[in-house]
Amino acid sequence: MRHLIDFGDLPRQEWDSLYHRASEIIDAPEKFIDVCRGKVSANLFYEPSTRTNFSFQTAMLRLGGSVFGFADPNSSSVSKGETLKDTIKIVSNYADVIVMRTPWEGAAKAASLYSNVPVVNAGDGGHMHPTQTMADLTTITRLRGKVDDLSIGLCGDLKNGRTVHSLIKALAKFQNITFFLISPRELAVPDYVRTFMRENNMRFTEVTGLEAVMPQLDVLYMTRIQKERFVDPVEYERNKGIYVLTRRKLDRAKPDMLILHPLPRVDEITVDVDDDPRAVFFQQARFGMFARMALLEHLATQPRWEDRDLPPVEIGTKPVCTNPRCITQTQHYLPPLVKKIGGVDCCGFCDAALR
Amino acid sequence: MRHLIDFGDLPRQEWDSLYHRASEIIDAPEKFIDVCRGKVSANLFYEPSTRTNFSFQTAMLRLGGSVFGFADPNSSSVSKGETLKDTIKIVSNYADVIVMRTPWEGAAKAASLYSNVPVVNAGDGGHMHPTQTMADLTTITRLRGKVDDLSIGLCGDLKNGRTVHSLIKALAKFQNITFFLISPRELAVPDYVRTFMRENNMRFTEVTGLEAVMPQLDVLYMTRIQKERFVDPVEYERNKGIYVLTRRKLDRAKPDMLILHPLPRVDEITVDVDDDPRAVFFQQARFGMFARMALLEHLATQPRWEDRDLPPVEIGTKPVCTNPRCITQTQHYLPPLVKKIGGVDCCGFCDAALR
Amino acid sequence: MRHLIDFGDLPRQEWDSLYHRASEIIDAPEKFIDVCRGKVSANLFYEPSTRTNFSFQTAMLRLGGSVFGFADPNSSSVSKGETLKDTIKIVSNYADVIVMRTPWEGAAKAASLYSNVPVVNAGDGGHMHPTQTMADLTTITRLRGKVDDLSIGLCGDLKNGRTVHSLIKALAKFQNITFFLISPRELAVPDYVRTFMRENNMRFTEVTGLEAVMPQLDVLYMTRIQKERFVDPVEYERNKGIYVLTRRKLDRAKPDMLILHPLPRVDEITVDVDDDPRAVFFQQARFGMFARMALLEHLATQPRWEDRDLPPVEIGTKPVCTNPRCITQTQHYLPPLVKKIGGVDCCGFCDAALR
Repeated sequence: MRHLIDFGDLPRQEWDSLYHRASEIIDAPEKFIDVCRGKVSANLFYEPSTRTNFSFQTAMLRLGGSVFGFADPNSSSVSKGETLKDTIKIVSNYADVIVMRTPWEGAAKAASLYSNVPVVNAGDGGHMHPTQTMADLTTITRLRGKVDDLSIGLCGDLKNGRTVHSLIKALAKFQNITFFLISPRELAVPDYVRTFMRENNMRFTEVTGLEAVMPQLDVLYMTRIQKERFVDPVEYERNKGIYVLTRRKLDRAKPDMLILHPLPRVDEITVDVDDDPRAVFFQQARFGMFARMALLEHLATQPRWEDRDLPPVEIGTKPVCTNPRCITQTQHYLPPLVKKIGGVDCCGFCDAALR
Repeated sequence: MRHLIDFGDLPRQEWDSLYHRASEIIDAPEKFIDVCRGKVSANLFYEPSTRTNFSFQTAMLRLGGSVFGFADPNSSSVSKGETLKDTIKIVSNYADVIVMRTPWEGAAKAASLYSNVPVVNAGDGGHMHPTQTMADLTTITRLRGKVDDLSIGLCGDLKNGRTVHSLIKALAKFQNITFFLISPRELAVPDYVRTFMRENNMRFTEVTGLEAVMPQLDVLYMTRIQKERFVDPVEYERNKGIYVLTRRKLDRAKPDMLILHPLPRVDEITVDVDDDPRAVFFQQARFGMFARMALLEHLATQPRWEDRDLPPVEIGTKPVCTNPRCITQTQHYLPPLVKKIGGVDCCGFCDAALR
Repeated sequence: MRHLIDFGDLPRQEWDSLYHRASEIIDAPEKFIDVCRGKVSANLFYEPSTRTNFSFQTAMLRLGGSVFGFADPNSSSVSKGETLKDTIKIVSNYADVIVMRTPWEGAAKAASLYSNVPVVNAGDGGHMHPTQTMADLTTITRLRGKVDDLSIGLCGDLKNGRTVHSLIKALAKFQNITFFLISPRELAVPDYVRTFMRENNMRFTEVTGLEAVMPQLDVLYMTRIQKERFVDPVEYERNKGIYVLTRRKLDRAKPDMLILHPLPRVDEITVDVDDDPRAVFFQQARFGMFARMALLEHLATQPRWEDRDLPPVEIGTKPVCTNPRCITQTQHYLPPLVKKIGGVDCCGFCDAALR
């Protein structure tokens, strides 16, 4: 692994090995306080994301490394009239690893073409957020011993949540999972996710009610459901209470069910749930930090690549992709990368189907 | 000591022990550059306070620890739709100690109920600022050998200055101090401070002029006095020169008097005073850093508390306190804590009397 | 060397010694990861400059030191009603070295009068930027073995670029350099630079075309040339293509010519040049970090000066300099420093001639 752009690129075996390391760190974090001594992480957050940034920062600091960067590009001059390529060339001269969060889909992939050090995708628009998936899988594996053979309920806004889409794609690597997709009809998973699950023989049921399936779940993954996502306010009023997890609704859940949430929560889990031992969403944040420690240790301790070690990159002239949020829309020098997804030509940066 | 929320909670003996440690650090700071190695401080500044933040940051860095956080919540997304409780639960999963500054009174106390690591109050609105008091006492003790038996003049705006109120409360722990409270009549100490001093048998004289009492002082504690605090502009014009400390006014002061100031100063001490050996306000900033080192060493090296080690917290539904700046006004899940102060029922967070 | 305010203050021998150290660091950076352990740098950026700040931060971090400060004073309260002197007195109580960038000319010099620790000028308005010059010289020396005896072309806006002026002044310390000053007539070097070069017997030719002199150059130093600098838009349209460096124009250049650029570039070097081995402007950023490591090691490991070790500073009352961008315009307590430059009385802070 040179970079972490998409969790889907990670073979199951590499994930197992990363998880194994994360688990060793959880058992004895004090053994790892020097493994990144002298190493420096550049955290480039082109949009604010305090929790993700804090998690990556503390992960690096707890390995004995250090961190610089920006938390919001408005307070910096980095993007002023400079291409992403130039920023990455400069920053990869200073850092041993680059962690980047952007509103532009495919930006981490674009950065990886030019970087002399590993790039970690900390979220690129609505596209990917692979280390959130690492946090989710670490939590389940650590607390249930494994991810295979479980019944997993995904609840809330399944249409817009990239966390949920990433997690579903990642769970295709595991065996014998039963999915319950719990959402209002208008916030159900997109067609391409449904197709993906069928193609990968993933067993799933779509339902609109949470309480009926509660007794069957080993894991309940809650997500934010926002009023403004509903086209019809009447529909919202009818639905809103259904997806709020309360202490009372947990009465019918298994005693060892895990409640996960990518955080921040707004009001989809009431505060009286927090003290229930099944509520592990704050621990999940902690496991996320440990998973990022395993990742950063792996990436930041690699030797730096000289320019001559980097594969040559074709110089583009205009975008081949029409996705308005794709990084190629503004960075015209990017090469015209195309890849096949399910037999369809897609953008090599943002994965959108090409027309 | 699990947290430092209010200097008043600290028994004299614990303070003596902290001062003793601060003093050892002042004598040989190089011996302490590893005591917090591997430890991480979260500095959550919900309002900017550059000097306090710098002091806490460098204190942690000089102990070999590291720091993350935000200097101004506008540049972060931490508070967006998230409760203080959730922020603290997440951050205390990443950090070994939390240093927080907020505009809301009682916020540090509220945070301490949920945190898995120690919380330090770096200022909560107009309520408390215990580490400024640590800086003041360290400076006096270090330079005069002790705090007991001194004549201390507090000069300027004694009505609005939380630094002065904190210091007076702290000095109740010491013996045989003579106070001179030097202020315009309309900026005299509030009644509750006067009552507190009488109840604690503290010897004090209130005066409006600085020069007459100057010869008696061992310590002169200057504070900002702002034009906009005066109701009557004529009163301001009549008063303004009186409280400006100049080199000339020092002619009548004792040769070993100490001049303190919490900084920043505006124009209440003229620049020609700076080179006088009695002007120790810049040293005071340095002693403040060392005092914070002693505090952070003590707190950050404690083992982390698991959720099961935290006392259970009742879930509230609405504030019992009517102070509009109290943290309970916006965080309705906080428990309805009440405590007695001088026989009166007061809010357990902001100390305001309940109606 | 107590401070680095102006590269011109550095004797050739001190520079050679700094370069020697930078070169040792480039050869084996891992040997230096502990030389600033326990040391803390204050990076005070009163205007944003992401690249310079990143370079100084990573330089300190790679020496095992740590960094605090602000990247933009708007997000801090440091300047609110406080003099530069007070800020420096406080910060030099916390830090072992101060790196400062300001829009005010002479500000680093002013800071150095009061600081208890070394001050590094990271750019003071249009005045000086000595560590950019260190980056330039390190790059040339490292890649060509020496700076003496070379033909150096400076191309673009030579009127407004402080980088170019600093570099020319620094190159007066070297032997037998041939200069080509390549610019549109209206963006030629200012008279005082031309006078400086003649006084120092520096051999130079001023030309308007890049291609004609290309074959003679050992170093081509490119700078930004901005449309808005041209008084006459027709002139701009006629000139704009001339100063864009393309792969094709390099056909006539020496095979070992070095292309430098202080970065960020806008469009004065096309992206197809980047893969040419003569394009060393990204390496130049890396060498800049190593040069700053040599500087910070030297400065941050000095013992701290007590107030009694600092030379006394006269208290001023009003500015003697009329340069509206000079630090003395707002900081009236600064002493009335005057120095002779080429027989003319100049401001001791910003170097502007006094009237």
